[in-house]
Amino acid sequence: MAVTLVTDNVLAEGLKTIQREVDAAFDSLLPLPSDPRSRLVEAMRYATIGGGKRLRPLLLAATADMYGVDRDAAVRAGVAIEAVHVYSLIHDDLPCMDDDALRHGKATLHIAFDEATAVLAGDALQCFAFEVLGDVATSGDPFVRIELVTTLAVASGHNGMAGGQMMDIAAETSSFDLSTVTRLQQLKTGALLGAAVEMGAILGKVPHEARKPLRAYARDIGLAFQIVDDLLDHEGDEEAAGKALRKDAEQGKETFVSLLGPERAREQARMLVDQAIGHLATHGPEADLLRALARFIVERDR
Amino acid sequence: MAVTLVTDNVLAEGLKTIQREVDAAFDSLLPLPSDPRSRLVEAMRYATIGGGKRLRPLLLAATADMYGVDRDAAVRAGVAIEAVHVYSLIHDDLPCMDDDALRHGKATLHIAFDEATAVLAGDALQCFAFEVLGDVATSGDPFVRIELVTTLAVASGHNGMAGGQMMDIAAETSSFDLSTVTRLQQLKTGALLGAAVEMGAILGKVPHEARKPLRAYARDIGLAFQIVDDLLDHEGDEEAAGKALRKDAEQGKETFVSLLGPERAREQARMLVDQAIGHLATHGPEADLLRALARFIVERDR
Repeated sequence: MAVTLVTDNVLAEGLKTIQREVDAAFDSLLPLPSDPRSRLVEAMRYATIGGGKRLRPLLLAATADMYGVDRDAAVRAGVAIEAVHVYSLIHDDLPCMDDDALRHGKATLHIAFDEATAVLAGDALQCFAFEVLGDVATSGDPFVRIELVTTLAVASGHNGMAGGQMMDIAAETSSFDLSTVTRLQQLKTGALLGAAVEMGAILGKVPHEARKPLRAYARDIGLAFQIVDDLLDHEGDEEAAGKALRKDAEQGKETFVSLLGPERAREQARMLVDQAIGHLATHGPEADLLRALARFIVERDR
Repeated sequence: MAVTLVTDNVLAEGLKTIQREVDAAFDSLLPLPSDPRSRLVEAMRYATIGGGKRLRPLLLAATADMYGVDRDAAVRAGVAIEAVHVYSLIHDDLPCMDDDALRHGKATLHIAFDEATAVLAGDALQCFAFEVLGDVATSGDPFVRIELVTTLAVASGHNGMAGGQMMDIAAETSSFDLSTVTRLQQLKTGALLGAAVEMGAILGKVPHEARKPLRAYARDIGLAFQIVDDLLDHEGDEEAAGKALRKDAEQGKETFVSLLGPERAREQARMLVDQAIGHLATHGPEADLLRALARFIVERDR
C-alpha cells in the first residue's frame, strides 16, 4: 500500500511537472505575430496550450531522466512529439475524417476557428515539431539530433501513425480480425508512444542493443493504452471524457472490445502492463516513473 | 542568339534530368506495402510521381552543383523539398481550401481518391520529407543535415509557407495593398523557393556570409515567379495550365496583376529577373543554369 502511494505521488508529480513545462514551452515557442498570420498562430496555441495529459512528453522525459539527460533537452524533444500528436488530433477531428466537435472538453479546432485554419494549423504544427527538434541541445553531438528527427519522422509517416490512420479508415468498410486490429493500433497509437520512449533513450545515448527492453516496454504499454481506450469508449461518460464516444461501434469498426469482449479486453490490458513492467526488471528506482505510468494506463478513467 | 540557344539547352537538359531523377527517387522511396496502408502510399505516389516542373529540386541541385556537391545528395534533398511542395498543393486543393478539381492536368488527390486520404497523404508526405533529409549523405558532416532539416522546417511553417497560406485566406475578406501582397507571396511561394537555393548552398558548405547573393537571387526570382503566375492566371488557358484559373479574381483577392495592371506587372517581373541574374555576377559559367532558370521563370507559358 505504501509503495502504491509513493508510486501515485511520483506519477502525479511527474504529470503536473511535465504539463507545466510543455505549456510554458509552447507558449514561448509560439509568440503571436502582428500580421494576418496571427490567426494561424492563435489556432496553433489554442490546440497546444492547456490540453491533454502530455503522456508522450512524460514518457520521453521519464526515459531520458533515467540516463541523466538535461531536462531542457528532454522537454524540448517532448514538445516536438506532442506537436505531432496534437496535429494528428486536429486533422483526425476534421469533418472528412472523424468529424468530431469536442476534444479535451472544448470545441475542436475546425469548430472554434474554421476547417481551412484547422488543416493549416495541423500542417504548421508538424513542421514546427521538426524545427524544434533541430535545436535540441545535445551536448555537441549532432548525430543525436538527426536520430531524433528520423525517429519522429518515421513514427509519424506512412509506415507509422499515418499508415495506422489509413488502416483505421479502411476498418469502416472491412471486417478486421484481432491480429489486423492489433497491427492497426500498433501503427496508429503505438508508433508515437514507442517513439517517445525511443527518443528519451536516444537523448540518453543508450546503445541500440540496450534499447530492446525499453522498446518492449513501449510496445506493451502502447497496446494496453489502446485496449483501455476502447474500454473507456465502450463504457465511459462523454462529459468526463471530453469527447464523443462510441463512434467506432456506430461506424461498424472492430475494436479490442468488440473482438474480445470487455472482460477479456481488460484482462489483456492488465497482462500487458505487468509484462511491460517486467521489461524494466534490470532497472532500479530510476524506472519508477515508467512503472507508475504503465499502471496509470490501465487504471485511468479517461 | 547563340548564347540564348546554349542557355535554352542547359535549361531543357537540366529540367529533363531532374524530372527523371526525382521521379525515380519517389518511385524507389515509396514502395507499395501489401496491407491496407497501400491506399495511402498509392495516393502519395499518385501525387508525387510524374507531375510538376520540379522547379524546387532543380534550383536546389543547380545551386549544389556550383559547389561540386554529390549529385545523389542533391537529388535526395530535392525530393524532400518537392515532397513538402506537393503536400502543400494536396492540402491547398481540398474543398475547405481552394476546392480545385484539376492539378497538372489530372484529377486532384481528393477527387481521384477521397478527402480523408488526401489529408493523410499530405500529412505523410510532410514527414516523409524530414525522413528523407535525415538520410542525406553529407560526407560525414551531420551539422549539414541538421541545417537542412531546420531550413526546410522553418520555410514550411507558420513563419514561412503555412503563414503565407493563412494570409492568402485572409486576403479573401481583406483588401491587401501591394506591400502586404508582396509579403504574403514572399511567404507563400518565396519561402520554399528560397529554401531550395539555401539547401543547395548548405550542401555546398557555403559559409553564411557568402550565401547573401544567392539569397538575393532567390528572393527576386521568387517574387518574379509569383507575378508571372498571376499573369498566367489572368491571361492563360485552363487546358494548357492543367488547372482552374482566375479563381483569385472570383474570390475578390488582390494580386500583383489586379494591383499593378498586366503591363507594369510584366515589367516588374522582367526587372526582378535581371536583378536576380545581377546577383550572380561574381560567378562564371557554373551559374548558367541558375541564370537560365531565372529567365525561364518570366518566359514560361505555364
